[in-house]
Amino acid sequence: MAIKANLEIPLFIKVNQADNTAIIVNAGGLKEGIEFSCGLILTEFIPQGHKVALADIDTGEDIVRYGEVIGYAQSPIKKGAWIREALVVMPTPPNLDSLSMSTNVAIVSPLEKEYTFLGYRNSDGSAGTKNILGISTSVQCVAGVLDFAVKKIKQELLPSFPNVDDVIALTHNYGCGVAINAPDAVIPIRTIQNLAKHPNFGGEVMIIGLGCEKLVPQRLNDGKDDGNILSLQDENGFVNMIQSIVAMAKERLQNLNERQREVCPVSDLVIGVQCGGSDAFSGVTANPAVGYAADLLVSAGATVLFSEVTEVRDAIHLLTPRAATEEVGQALIREMKWYDDYLSRGEADRSANPSPGNKRGGLSNVVEKSLGSIVKSGTSPIVDVLAPGEKARKKGLVFAATPASDFVCGTLQLASGIHLQVFTTGRGTPYGLSIAPVIKVSTRNALQEQWHDLIDINAGKIATGEATIEDVGWEIFNDILEVASGTKKTWADKWGIHNDLALFNPSPVT
Amino acid sequence: MAIKANLEIPLFIKVNQADNTAIIVNAGGLKEGIEFSCGLILTEFIPQGHKVALADIDTGEDIVRYGEVIGYAQSPIKKGAWIREALVVMPTPPNLDSLSMSTNVAIVSPLEKEYTFLGYRNSDGSAGTKNILGISTSVQCVAGVLDFAVKKIKQELLPSFPNVDDVIALTHNYGCGVAINAPDAVIPIRTIQNLAKHPNFGGEVMIIGLGCEKLVPQRLNDGKDDGNILSLQDENGFVNMIQSIVAMAKERLQNLNERQREVCPVSDLVIGVQCGGSDAFSGVTANPAVGYAADLLVSAGATVLFSEVTEVRDAIHLLTPRAATEEVGQALIREMKWYDDYLSRGEADRSANPSPGNKRGGLSNVVEKSLGSIVKSGTSPIVDVLAPGEKARKKGLVFAATPASDFVCGTLQLASGIHLQVFTTGRGTPYGLSIAPVIKVSTRNALQEQWHDLIDINAGKIATGEATIEDVGWEIFNDILEVASGTKKTWADKWGIHNDLALFNPSPVT
Repeated sequence: MAIKANLEIPLFIKVNQADNTAIIVNAGGLKEGIEFSCGLILTEFIPQGHKVALADIDTGEDIVRYGEVIGYAQSPIKKGAWIREALVVMPTPPNLDSLSMSTNVAIVSPLEKEYTFLGYRNSDGSAGTKNILGISTSVQCVAGVLDFAVKKIKQELLPSFPNVDDVIALTHNYGCGVAINAPDAVIPIRTIQNLAKHPNFGGEVMIIGLGCEKLVPQRLNDGKDDGNILSLQDENGFVNMIQSIVAMAKERLQNLNERQREVCPVSDLVIGVQCGGSDAFSGVTANPAVGYAADLLVSAGATVLFSEVTEVRDAIHLLTPRAATEEVGQALIREMKWYDDYLSRGEADRSANPSPGNKRGGLSNVVEKSLGSIVKSGTSPIVDVLAPGEKARKKGLVFAATPASDFVCGTLQLASGIHLQVFTTGRGTPYGLSIAPVIKVSTRNALQEQWHDLIDINAGKIATGEATIEDVGWEIFNDILEVASGTKKTWADKWGIHNDLALFNPSPVT
Repeated sequence: MAIKANLEIPLFIKVNQADNTAIIVNAGGLKEGIEFSCGLILTEFIPQGHKVALADIDTGEDIVRYGEVIGYAQSPIKKGAWIREALVVMPTPPNLDSLSMSTNVAIVSPLEKEYTFLGYRNSDGSAGTKNILGISTSVQCVAGVLDFAVKKIKQELLPSFPNVDDVIALTHNYGCGVAINAPDAVIPIRTIQNLAKHPNFGGEVMIIGLGCEKLVPQRLNDGKDDGNILSLQDENGFVNMIQSIVAMAKERLQNLNERQREVCPVSDLVIGVQCGGSDAFSGVTANPAVGYAADLLVSAGATVLFSEVTEVRDAIHLLTPRAATEEVGQALIREMKWYDDYLSRGEADRSANPSPGNKRGGLSNVVEKSLGSIVKSGTSPIVDVLAPGEKARKKGLVFAATPASDFVCGTLQLASGIHLQVFTTGRGTPYGLSIAPVIKVSTRNALQEQWHDLIDINAGKIATGEATIEDVGWEIFNDILEVASGTKKTWADKWGIHNDLALFNPSPVT
């Protein structure tokens, strides 16, 4: 454990030797005239998390953070000045046709000790971190009826099945009134299909359909039309619908209730990492700690998914060298190109990210955000790339292509089969998922203090020297095992606060 | 009232003198060899709602229903044969550059009697059909916290405010991780803005934001940052968030509870009409009855919105002549063109509609579906066209451009300010909206019998001769006044089953 820093002392964080910028650590920012121990004097007030120039930077010269160019000076910036967003001209994104490939593939050494967790073993060999009755839906039309039924099931049945954690209606806005044969429709469809088979549902399948929808419910059930599907149009009215849904749920609750947790190796885990509400600390506290934990997980044989195409795009030149094979590298490029095209079809571009909150947190542009974002992936080789909503199929570090939108990324990572998500936040979001636990990691002490009953782990202490990246990395790793085992609950699960499923549907609504 | 038909007698419905097709009325369909009173003999089994050829139709010849060409014969069709979907070659859609304009503008005569309903008068002059606390959100991130708070408000506060009908969290999947400046982002944004000011919320505004989202909450509040907005990032943790939301709700519940219903003219009403889960009866029973009711409403001075671009596109040549002015006609064409382009960008086309259920119900293609769909609009002149999510601004019949997706159309019509929706269904859907009541009208007797506790009005009796279109039209009109007055509850409201808000977002997720 590092020595606790005295926060009366002005502090900045410089990440890389080559950087000509650093971020202000002190809460509330630092005033004009403040002098750092190195002799640097601020020429103006700079808010917390915002960048100070460590040297004079002339018009057009590189602004460097993380050892990478995050932009060019719009006008001369004096040493000690605040590098505001407007002073940073965004560089063009890396050219996807001239990236170096598989030139920086790290060797993964197994951990000295074997780590385990207490999971639910499924008949297909996978494991679960929760024991949930998941009720899938083929179309939004059934949502109202299913919500009514689930309320009844939770009130009247669930208390009799103490080994079952929850009953969840997987409602969504897809299923009809959509161009179901359009090329990109494959994304929402496979997301719904894979959600229906989430490992936390213990192999119990239950699908509520309407009967005339475009997404026929059999497509969620391997093409089979069996007892796992109930179509409302076959029922004799509402009361009958509710009775049938409750009866169907009861059978499955009985099966789920017989399950017990057992010791499982960490290699059974699929862990998603994501950031949301990022600030300039994200890339120096929480995300590097998550990256350290990701490396531990990969060393222990687990699968780790990182995502968020728009926050990877500008740092892609740092990722293709880490692709385990040329094929994986090409798959990374394929997903970047798909997204470039998707954004251009919608007349949007990458400057749509970061958000206003990101900017208030000190992030000038998506290049800086990306550099801070990809450190969540640690240093392991990238062994596979998943198109949005595809199921994870390899152990190790995997890029799961998703939008950066927190709730859309969460939904897609769930479809890819994550058992748990680690979510870093600088500005603060009460984000949660109903299907898998979310461990929330704050980038700043102040956020953890303010949101003491929402933030699970505080990585802010890295900035103040109270802990190292390794310390917090191990803390995250150990927390994952406890939460996965059900011996510890995340704050979101304690309160029962969860975001809605938000599908990624890039194809037309009709 | 017409004489009740004996359903032992084989029946078909021919809509227009020029038609060479008719649909089979009898439940279960009719067998080969069955002879109708006119002498027509079926050459094969034909299911209920499906089309029979009334004459020999040679390859390439017109197949005519509603007096319009719904397709061309793929191969020779014999008189008495089943005109299956595969036999119908779809015609090209009407050319948008050569439509006749304002050539068929009906004159609207006021009704002899003045009709009223009991509504809640709002301070801006509008009226409401419910008295609801609507809590808006600027981003999905806050949904879990708000759902928790709303549960508490409904359990602990609402019983003390008996004049308030409901407390609704307007949660949605927008607000961050989106290309907020892309051209089409205007659609979801104005939808959320207009939903926040729905007339059933009595002028009470309450907005829950996060603090770092792209859709800043002030945009839902006329740009103002006042006591109507609560940002979770300003709160000290979860418990504090819930306390603040509950306190904010309590103030507004007190105001709403002081309101009483009063007599309002029908001209205060904005009524949406929509169809979902259509079948071949939709165009001859429920939709014409709704069209009759729409004419009554317009004659009484109300606003009626009809929608569903993809189900209007192929019948647009019947609508531009009804445009009250050239400007309205051009606006109709503008919305059709926008949608043509939107579908082509997504590599989809209009053949994506109808759904499998529509087809099982006898609808061959979107041309036939459209002809049956637009009759919901009645015969009045079209006085205005709304782009998706725009607020209604004129009395009379208005085309509100929306996708045909039931839940997306419902959400957009709510944004346009409907007080109540009339929804026709042939296959059956338990559809409902939380903000405004939905009166569900069945197209077939069998559906009403099967879903006796979900269908509010049965228009199927038109097919069997038990009632006329006028009878059911008046029944719908009177039901609208009762439901709008709160003296009658729709089935969906009785059970409390409602669909989620489903935004139309044609712009990219980032």
